[in-house]
Amino acid sequence: MDPSQVKIPPMKNLTVDNITENVIRINSLCKDPRMKYVLERLVTHLHDFARETRLSSAEWMTGLEFLTEVGQICTDVRQEYILLSDVLGLSILVDSIDHPKPPNSTEGTVLGPFHTHEAEEISLGGSMSTDPAGEPLLVVCTIKDTAGNPVEGVKIDIWETDSTGHYDVQHADRDGPDGRCIMHSDCEGVFWFNAITPVPYPIPHDGPVGRLLTKLHRHPYRPSHMHFMFEKGGFDNLITALYLRNDPYETSDAVFGVKDSLVVDLGRAGPEYAAKYGVSEDHVLLTYDFVLVSDVETSELRAKNSKAALDKLGRKVKIVNGLPIPELD
Amino acid sequence: MDPSQVKIPPMKNLTVDNITENVIRINSLCKDPRMKYVLERLVTHLHDFARETRLSSAEWMTGLEFLTEVGQICTDVRQEYILLSDVLGLSILVDSIDHPKPPNSTEGTVLGPFHTHEAEEISLGGSMSTDPAGEPLLVVCTIKDTAGNPVEGVKIDIWETDSTGHYDVQHADRDGPDGRCIMHSDCEGVFWFNAITPVPYPIPHDGPVGRLLTKLHRHPYRPSHMHFMFEKGGFDNLITALYLRNDPYETSDAVFGVKDSLVVDLGRAGPEYAAKYGVSEDHVLLTYDFVLVSDVETSELRAKNSKAALDKLGRKVKIVNGLPIPELD
Repeated sequence: MDPSQVKIPPMKNLTVDNITENVIRINSLCKDPRMKYVLERLVTHLHDFARETRLSSAEWMTGLEFLTEVGQICTDVRQEYILLSDVLGLSILVDSIDHPKPPNSTEGTVLGPFHTHEAEEISLGGSMSTDPAGEPLLVVCTIKDTAGNPVEGVKIDIWETDSTGHYDVQHADRDGPDGRCIMHSDCEGVFWFNAITPVPYPIPHDGPVGRLLTKLHRHPYRPSHMHFMFEKGGFDNLITALYLRNDPYETSDAVFGVKDSLVVDLGRAGPEYAAKYGVSEDHVLLTYDFVLVSDVETSELRAKNSKAALDKLGRKVKIVNGLPIPELD
Repeated sequence: MDPSQVKIPPMKNLTVDNITENVIRINSLCKDPRMKYVLERLVTHLHDFARETRLSSAEWMTGLEFLTEVGQICTDVRQEYILLSDVLGLSILVDSIDHPKPPNSTEGTVLGPFHTHEAEEISLGGSMSTDPAGEPLLVVCTIKDTAGNPVEGVKIDIWETDSTGHYDVQHADRDGPDGRCIMHSDCEGVFWFNAITPVPYPIPHDGPVGRLLTKLHRHPYRPSHMHFMFEKGGFDNLITALYLRNDPYETSDAVFGVKDSLVVDLGRAGPEYAAKYGVSEDHVLLTYDFVLVSDVETSELRAKNSKAALDKLGRKVKIVNGLPIPELD
């Protein structure tokens, strides 16, 4: 391609009023219709944001410096952009759009910035935490499909903080994964393991996102919770978490993750669980029955929701590869 | 502040439809009304963008990884976020909003990512480029106010590439500033200096912004130009550039900066300039008459434009510290 020969309408004298259509026009050279649509909406909203706020050059520079700093503080074990997306409510929104749940299935919630790919596989009944200061917690769960059949062989990725409210990767001196594990459900769709009772903790607030929260006069705390991710061929990946009832931050989660259906009461093992799982009767117990949705049902529901939402906005779209693009006449 | 005691409405069960109002509500704890307004519009547009595109989790992650990479490639001498803002047309838009120009004043344009604070002051008639391969160019300009009076003592910051199309900071082995200078206008509002004829060049496209342009099938070139920034107390800072007519990229600038009023024809010194400035008669000559706008006139025009634009959008605002915030009844 000789760029000086690219055929695009001449672009000069761009103003507050005509810049948007011109940027969209040159971006429409893009061959990928989905990317073209995403960029068209991105540029429109970015420009409307500047026009509606009458954004000043100084504010613009402050914003760019902030975004630069958010990128620069990221490392292999710190993802400040996910954190920014979380505190702006974008993460929970995208999860809700992309992983719609039919009634009676388990709701999803935010992934958060602390999922890693280094958790080790443990056997059913194994222990995921080595923190001696944590309160021992027995977790016993089932996994079913929406028809009520147990789902065997689901890969479950589980992670939680230690008793001080820090994930393993937040400790500079760690020597391996802790407070996280991978396991697989058995033929009855059951999985169980030993963990510690989750505690509330602040999201990392020593960086640019923390400073943003301070300026907004918002606290950085998340209510006590344990993360779960479920994967099995034929089912929509479920990223979710369980929250402890009556946590001081239950209704003001810094990242907007709490849903009533995911709030649980801890109990005690009692005679039956004590005998079956080899713990004392007063051992703290968490039980939950997860319900996974099939890929097919999810993609049908996602497409239906997309069409309905965009119809409502007056946008004619068609669904291609599961995602909307404009329907051109 | 005990964050568990913060008085905000309970936030749980957030959905595609109610997340935005809830994020705005918790952000409204912010004490700064301007920041609160900017964040309200930011969150609204960010969420609407996700809703209108039905953004997928995979696209969301691709976006966050892109933003992370844009931040991580930034250094003291490379500002990829300004570049991103430039290629999305945001930079020229913000400049137009924040530095409105009355008729017969010099228009502004994009700052670009290559302004530095290390340019050295030179005397009138000095040389800003040491590149022996560049075509020598004599630049003779005047600065006036909107009433036609010469403006003395304006600090002028000027920067251009070398003859290969690279700014000094793009050379890893550079040993100081080159192709940039600072000078001050004399009592007749005149400044003049020796430079080299600008050449077209691609913006840095070996990073994430370059990859974005490739995906969009856009070229990364800017037409030949020279940057100028003018500062003097009582006048609105003018950030602008002069472009050479008939450049192959004159109508397809990758960063949307070209305006007809800033496009110039190069000439030859001729007998008068040759005698006055000590060059040969066929020496290449660039002349331009800049017109600066007072701070007062600019802020009145900016406030008037803001009110008019926001009235048109049905937003009742008042101007505080030069910027709009909602007018609450």
